Amino acid sequence: MPYRAPSADIRFILDHVVPLAPVSATEKFADATAEMAGAILTEAGRLCETILAPIQRNGDLHPARLEDGVVRTSPGFAEAYQAICEGGWIAVCAPTEHGGMGLPQCVNMAIHDMMSGACLSLQLLPLMTQGQIEALDHHASDELKALYLPNLISGKWAGTMNLTEPQAGSDVGALRTRAEPNGDGTYSITGQKIFISWGDSDLVENVCHLVLARLPGAAPGTKGISLFMVPKYIPDENGAPGKANSLRVVSLEHKMGLHGSPTCVMSYEGATGWLVGQENRGMAAMFTMMNNARLGVAMQGIGVAEAACQAATAYAADRQQFGPIINHADVRRMLAEMRCETFAARAIALACAQAIDMAHATGDADWAARAAFLTPIAKTIGTETGMRAAETAMQVHGGMGFVEETGIAQYYRDVRVTAIYEGTNGIQAMDLVGRKLSDGGEAAYRLLEEVQSYAESVRAANPDLAGAVWAAAETLREATEWMVAQAPRDRQAGAIPYLRAFARVLGAHFHLRAAMADEIGARKALAGFFIRRLLPQHASLLAEARDGAETVDSVTPEVLGA
Amino acid sequence: MPYRAPSADIRFILDHVVPLAPVSATEKFADATAEMAGAILTEAGRLCETILAPIQRNGDLHPARLEDGVVRTSPGFAEAYQAICEGGWIAVCAPTEHGGMGLPQCVNMAIHDMMSGACLSLQLLPLMTQGQIEALDHHASDELKALYLPNLISGKWAGTMNLTEPQAGSDVGALRTRAEPNGDGTYSITGQKIFISWGDSDLVENVCHLVLARLPGAAPGTKGISLFMVPKYIPDENGAPGKANSLRVVSLEHKMGLHGSPTCVMSYEGATGWLVGQENRGMAAMFTMMNNARLGVAMQGIGVAEAACQAATAYAADRQQFGPIINHADVRRMLAEMRCETFAARAIALACAQAIDMAHATGDADWAARAAFLTPIAKTIGTETGMRAAETAMQVHGGMGFVEETGIAQYYRDVRVTAIYEGTNGIQAMDLVGRKLSDGGEAAYRLLEEVQSYAESVRAANPDLAGAVWAAAETLREATEWMVAQAPRDRQAGAIPYLRAFARVLGAHFHLRAAMADEIGARKALAGFFIRRLLPQHASLLAEARDGAETVDSVTPEVLGA
Repeated sequence: MPYRAPSADIRFILDHVVPLAPVSATEKFADATAEMAGAILTEAGRLCETILAPIQRNGDLHPARLEDGVVRTSPGFAEAYQAICEGGWIAVCAPTEHGGMGLPQCVNMAIHDMMSGACLSLQLLPLMTQGQIEALDHHASDELKALYLPNLISGKWAGTMNLTEPQAGSDVGALRTRAEPNGDGTYSITGQKIFISWGDSDLVENVCHLVLARLPGAAPGTKGISLFMVPKYIPDENGAPGKANSLRVVSLEHKMGLHGSPTCVMSYEGATGWLVGQENRGMAAMFTMMNNARLGVAMQGIGVAEAACQAATAYAADRQQFGPIINHADVRRMLAEMRCETFAARAIALACAQAIDMAHATGDADWAARAAFLTPIAKTIGTETGMRAAETAMQVHGGMGFVEETGIAQYYRDVRVTAIYEGTNGIQAMDLVGRKLSDGGEAAYRLLEEVQSYAESVRAANPDLAGAVWAAAETLREATEWMVAQAPRDRQAGAIPYLRAFARVLGAHFHLRAAMADEIGARKALAGFFIRRLLPQHASLLAEARDGAETVDSVTPEVLGA
Repeated sequence: MPYRAPSADIRFILDHVVPLAPVSATEKFADATAEMAGAILTEAGRLCETILAPIQRNGDLHPARLEDGVVRTSPGFAEAYQAICEGGWIAVCAPTEHGGMGLPQCVNMAIHDMMSGACLSLQLLPLMTQGQIEALDHHASDELKALYLPNLISGKWAGTMNLTEPQAGSDVGALRTRAEPNGDGTYSITGQKIFISWGDSDLVENVCHLVLARLPGAAPGTKGISLFMVPKYIPDENGAPGKANSLRVVSLEHKMGLHGSPTCVMSYEGATGWLVGQENRGMAAMFTMMNNARLGVAMQGIGVAEAACQAATAYAADRQQFGPIINHADVRRMLAEMRCETFAARAIALACAQAIDMAHATGDADWAARAAFLTPIAKTIGTETGMRAAETAMQVHGGMGFVEETGIAQYYRDVRVTAIYEGTNGIQAMDLVGRKLSDGGEAAYRLLEEVQSYAESVRAANPDLAGAVWAAAETLREATEWMVAQAPRDRQAGAIPYLRAFARVLGAHFHLRAAMADEIGARKALAGFFIRRLLPQHASLLAEARDGAETVDSVTPEVLGA
């Protein structure tokens, strides 16, 4: 069965569960009415179904390859990328003064959900470029903006982010790439970067690298890092790609999946770069890029979960073993779980997008805090949902799932990286219980207050489900109070289960909202499944979250046999 | 870091947790003393570390391939297989009258654990042959035994099992392969079989296929299935491989992993076969083979979990990001979890092996019922532990784990199939709540009685952990009572969470035993982690198990969009 874009599910969420209405009510996003969003999602869905989904297997069967220093992409990727550019899909959120559409992230992230389900490896390219557009828009000089933004927004040029070095992964501050002032306002960049997604390709005229590097005498760690624009071809006086810069793709990584997306080892050998933002403030600028990329990665997981769920459902309806296997209780359980989890993760991620949009449009600090709080949750749960759905879809397929021909194995291999890149899920959880609880839990309590108020308001209509959601939120509130009062290491030892429990409660909340808005009853069935069968996990997760560090630390390296 | 055979961990379990002593105390296994088992495990460990582990990557990088109708195996596999044969490792449990060693499964399965961690794709070959040896020993005529067993036990010939056909997977009874009597006591076998592990190879002189087929006029379904020995080469009067039989390998499956193990599509075109057991009683004979193969597959999962855990621990001790990452709370949590889960799954699987041995040696029906009860639990939990450990090991490796060079990706891809073959984990769970609870829960209650008695006996010494184990067992006892009283569909809808909860309680029980036997304290730390942080999951699992079918069934195919 071919991929079907879930635009109806997304529209239902934006209408009833995580409403677009307050976003459309702001002056900034007044154009983004429900009608407009609907039309855009329909159009994007068509692109995904007819142009992107058909090339998805090509990326796996004919991976991107390095040839004479240039990355050659998989068959069909050039035409598909062209269609993305022509549709203006890179421009969705970009500033209107440089050719962007200025629409909210709610809409943009919904499109990434669909693009990811259709062709994950190609979707990553516009996602990276969009992050760069945002970083430049916030931090670059007007001159750099004028030179780069129009070409990035049209998709003629692509953007990358260069953080990682062999010794500097999660610890970005350990990077060694050097930037020496040339005396003319430019810098000379020298160093090696690894894991650079779409570090080169034959799809674009120019590749614009945002590179983190260290100025002479800069402070150690993240405080001595600056950000530079280092284009593959230096734009000439007309803004066209001119002289080749001193940088090259050394090799492509041989990865387990996502073969359509070239992951490059990049070498900068005195390449010319331009400072973006202030000296030694590169991390701040890079975080602009990374935060939205994190939500974009959440959508990747959700998109793959959707695609895997569709494939498993179609297979189960068709495959006969004692009748169609979709009627077997355990197969039905697996399919229901995938469907419920995908909905929950999608709603959480769109709630994060909504908060980003509201913060952006209103400048309200509470919305900004909510966006910041939800980002690590959305990233972790979106990607875990993708992994689990791909695993379950393979299980539904039985032996046929382990054979590459069915395509399920590709989902399983491709989506695995989403839990790792843009900050591993462990790093996300550290961020949640560290920085994001450093407000004393305010952002968390506001969310939980909303969950409980809503449950109260519908308790009469739906006592069982609303009661379960209210009680789970209460347990989570107590656990949050406990967390806030602990030393960092105790929080960290419980960070992942705490994050998962938070997602269970939020997921249940959104399922409850969906059930209340549904007159036909399909949403009620899914909400019942989620709240009755999956929400109870919050209790054991929070028991683990509150266990503290002692149990973990008693398993010393010696005990582990290290 | 190279693979280190976990012989010390296994010996600790066989000394203190799932003791070999009662097995050695039987007349049948009187030779299998602790000393002898120790010596054998040490020797097998050496084989695994020095011969098998070094070729493991070869299987992935240079997969088995079909060349002129013959399967050519990966580099080094021939020498390694030779070492397995010369060490007598296929003969461990085989009947002594045909050249076997007649040792217990406790020892044999421990060896499979180590062989799987060292080289999963090659380990599968002796595992399949052993299953065939057992099936022939129980069901074949003396003439067939005399002809085949010595060559299978020495490893000169290999054995396969041929059940699956495109339309007959979990529903074996749907198979269509035909067997026509030739009038001379032999049969003519015609049909196609798929997913035949090690269906051919250049490692052995002859490949002996046990093929399920249907006699003319046989009843539909599993009641009309007979079992046949169909050798690649028909043994001549001296028992040497003679004339080629009318069968061939059509193709090899293109799988996501386990590339060193050739998975064949087999075609039988009037091939000569010999009946094994009685006409129309083929399923019973095949189940002999399958039950032990299921435990062997449990060991595969556990072996890979061990290897992945070792690799992740070594990487975490070495990798510096803000100091060695093994000291980060969440990395430590991941490593501790892998280590605890591996121990629990290993103890459960060895408890199953112990029950098989005791049933075999004493003929006691309670031991047989225990073995039957533990088999689906061991298979599911062993393989889920393998999958989860490989996933977690990749997470610990970060981006390096997604790159094929580190070898973690191979574990992740290879182990995935173990949850699918030899009966999917869903089928295992159906077996558990169906056939295995059809005794009214007796076998379950006996196990839980043992868990609770033990907890009582050590409560004074370790009140917290013992109390938690006792209480969890009580909750499980109540859930078992509920299960036994339900209609089949309600049981089935809760089968997987019920199975997982049972494994949580058994794992906690074995961890508690380990803690009590440990004077140094390493086992106490692991037991504390398992019981404090993972055992609480039993409650939410049992809540789900007891939810019944209504919630699941309300998610209809229409709700799922099928």
